[in-house]
This record gives sequence, structure tokens and C-alpha cells, in this order.
Amino acid sequence: MNKVTQLYEGKAKKVWTTEDPELLIVDYKDDATAGNGAKKGTIHDKGIINNRVTNHLMKMLEKEGVPTHLVEEISDRETIVKKVTIVPLEVIVRNIAAGSLSKRIGLPEGTPMKKTVLEYCYKDDALGDPMVNEYHILAMEWCTKEELDLIAKYALKVNEVLSAYLKEVNIQLIDFKLEFGKLSDGTIVLADEISPDTCRFWDTVTHEKLDKDRFRRDMGGEEDAYKEVMKRLMGE
Amino acid sequence: MNKVTQLYEGKAKKVWTTEDPELLIVDYKDDATAGNGAKKGTIHDKGIINNRVTNHLMKMLEKEGVPTHLVEEISDRETIVKKVTIVPLEVIVRNIAAGSLSKRIGLPEGTPMKKTVLEYCYKDDALGDPMVNEYHILAMEWCTKEELDLIAKYALKVNEVLSAYLKEVNIQLIDFKLEFGKLSDGTIVLADEISPDTCRFWDTVTHEKLDKDRFRRDMGGEEDAYKEVMKRLMGE
Repeated sequence: MNKVTQLYEGKAKKVWTTEDPELLIVDYKDDATAGNGAKKGTIHDKGIINNRVTNHLMKMLEKEGVPTHLVEEISDRETIVKKVTIVPLEVIVRNIAAGSLSKRIGLPEGTPMKKTVLEYCYKDDALGDPMVNEYHILAMEWCTKEELDLIAKYALKVNEVLSAYLKEVNIQLIDFKLEFGKLSDGTIVLADEISPDTCRFWDTVTHEKLDKDRFRRDMGGEEDAYKEVMKRLMGE
Repeated sequence: MNKVTQLYEGKAKKVWTTEDPELLIVDYKDDATAGNGAKKGTIHDKGIINNRVTNHLMKMLEKEGVPTHLVEEISDRETIVKKVTIVPLEVIVRNIAAGSLSKRIGLPEGTPMKKTVLEYCYKDDALGDPMVNEYHILAMEWCTKEELDLIAKYALKVNEVLSAYLKEVNIQLIDFKLEFGKLSDGTIVLADEISPDTCRFWDTVTHEKLDKDRFRRDMGGEEDAYKEVMKRLMGE
């Protein structure tokens, strides 16, 4: 399987076509952005860590009944994935208030939510990925009701599986962002990545941040934090 | 029934206790604000028009099976209402894209929504009345699932009744904001007001704005627009 043409370059990944029209190669970069691109930088070896961590977690989720786009890891930074049409939503799952939710509703970071919260943001950089609700999604036909129900079900299942698994390695899953796509036959699968770029991971005991907030908030230590996550998850 | 003590002064209304602990008197002001209080002004006789229009529409809604807080209009600007505990949500119903929705999702004003859209905003001036979703509402316990389902049902019923009624007087109901409250026995009723302050009304033919957007957007002619709405609805 070889890279043929570059289909897309995002903030953290490049995506390439292959000889197989149903398969793509994702290539993880070390580039880091925050604030919808307002802050730019590099986190050394982030691409390697996010590639490995994402694949490790997606393999686990497949076993637990959540279909994903993962096919095969082919190098440190590269993975073959199924080609999908992305549902243009960021699906955010929140167990503990942090980040934009804390600002939005005035709830201090670290406050446990009494029920798991799902949020949807419309993926549109020019609009700043605005939060939307189910009515907007269905009226705009970004997906169907059946697809949205399945996406919500998978998102809650991912939360259940990952929260339990991460707890074993002393990581609290505060919140995370998922993206879903549709295969050519219409099947909804988990796509994108699951990594310290897209999740808030806090050490269960010290509450130390082990995620991209270290970069977003100029806290420093992001390289060590990403390495620590990989070490706890994969022993490397 | 007499005003006893002022309970609350809002942007557009004062609320007074009465001798009856279950009843309040609402007193409509001519004060107008926009942009969460950033712009302030006066619309002559707005208080009279909003009092009369609200009561006229609430009476109609009661007949159509939507319970309201309305008891009795006692003067040009004053109405006796049932005392409620306000559910801290602005419930927004949208038929046509306008205002914040147009900005949020990049849809030009005047675009019909393929399905009716409901939105909820958490009533908190300091936070700027942020948009929230059902998960936030239930996790924060701003109301119960049963109450929220009933509120959504009532909001859609109000839209159905008012859209049909307004069409007869050549007014298109673009969108509107409702608030609901709980009586002491827990019954959910429609509260607050339904007026050119809280609805977008467009002339069906000319698309002329007959609502507070004339004030918000410095278009002028807001007094005449409010009077025109009252005239079309009540022949006055």
C-alpha cells in the first residue's frame, strides 16, 4: 500500500489516497494548534504518540463493538484507514467540567457533571466550529436522525470503555472529542483520532494535566505529558 | 388587587407582589435594551403594546391547550399573573434563519429551516445567556426530563398556533423566545411575554421587520412597527 496523492492537510494530520479507492493513509504531524489556529507550535514526536495511542484505543473499541475506520498501522506516524465521508460534527463527551463548558455555564473546572454531557459542534473553521444542537443538525441535514442516534450511542459507549480502561492506569477521562464518518455503504464508523490532542486526561491522584491543555495554556511540559500517556497505555 | 412590594425590575418589566401570595402584578415599561444591555433606549408606548399583545396571544393559547400564567389585564400596562418559579431557560423556536442562528451556522437571514428548530439558552446575564443543550439542562438540573419534554411540546404548539394566526394578518413568524415557569403545585405554564420584543415578525409580502430588530439594528421606525403589530392583531 502506497501514498498516491495528498487529499488533505489538516492541523495535525495529512491524508493520502492509495491504490485502493476505499483506503487512505493518515500521516500524523508534530504540528500543534490551539484557539482555532490562533496559536501554532510543535510538540516533538506528538505525531508518533498520537498515531500509536489512537490505534491502540481504536483496536480496543472495535473489540467492544464500536466500529472504527482503523485498518493497519504501517509506520510510526502512518496508518491505513477506511475512506469515509466525514459527518461534519465534533462530538464532545464530558464527564467533568473543563474548558469551553466551564466558561459557557460558569462551572469551575474539575466539577463532576451529574450526568454525562454530549455536545455537538458544526465542523467549520470559518465559523469557529460553533456548538449546535440536534434540531440544527437535522434541519441542516448534516446527518439523519438514525445516524445521530447511533453516533450518540457509540460516543457514550466509547466513554464507558475508555473511562474504565484509563482509570486502571491512573488517568481520569475528563472530556474528549470524537468524529464519525460514513463508509461507502453508509455504515457509521468512528474516525479521526483519540489522543492527548483530542482528550483531556488528568492524573487521577495529582490532577496533573496530561494533554494538549499544557500547550493551549502555555503550561509547558507537553512533550513529557504525551510520552507519559503513551507509557501508561502501552508500556513504552 | 394591589401592588405590595416590588419583587424584581427587569429590562422591560417590573414585577410586584400582591396581597395574594400566589399572584403577582407585571408592569410593562417602555425601556428597550439590546445586546445583553449594551444598547439602551425607549420605545414610546411599547409597554402598553406588549402588555396587550401578550395577553391577547396568551388567551388564544390557553384556548388551544397551552397553560399560561395569565390571570387578568388590569390596566394599559399592568396584568395579574400567577406566581411561578421560572425555569432558567430561554426557549427559542425558529422557522426561518435570522439573528444569532444566521451568524452561528452561516445561513443567510430569511432562509427557511427544513425543520422547526428549538434552542435553549441558560438565563444568566453575566454569562450572556449561553446556548445550552438538553444534556446540559439535565446534568445541571435546571429542570427534569419530563418538564423539558413538556416545555418542548408546548413551544412547538405555540409555534403552530401563532404561525397560523399571524399568517391571517400578513405576518410571518420568523422566530420567537418563550419562558416557562412552575406553579407552586409543579404545573408548567407559559410565562413572560409574547410581543415584538420577543418575536421576529416580518410582513408576509414586503418582508418589512415589525419587531425589536428595528431598534437592535438602528433601523428606526420601531414605534410604528409595534403599533402596526397591535393594529393587525387587535384592530387598535
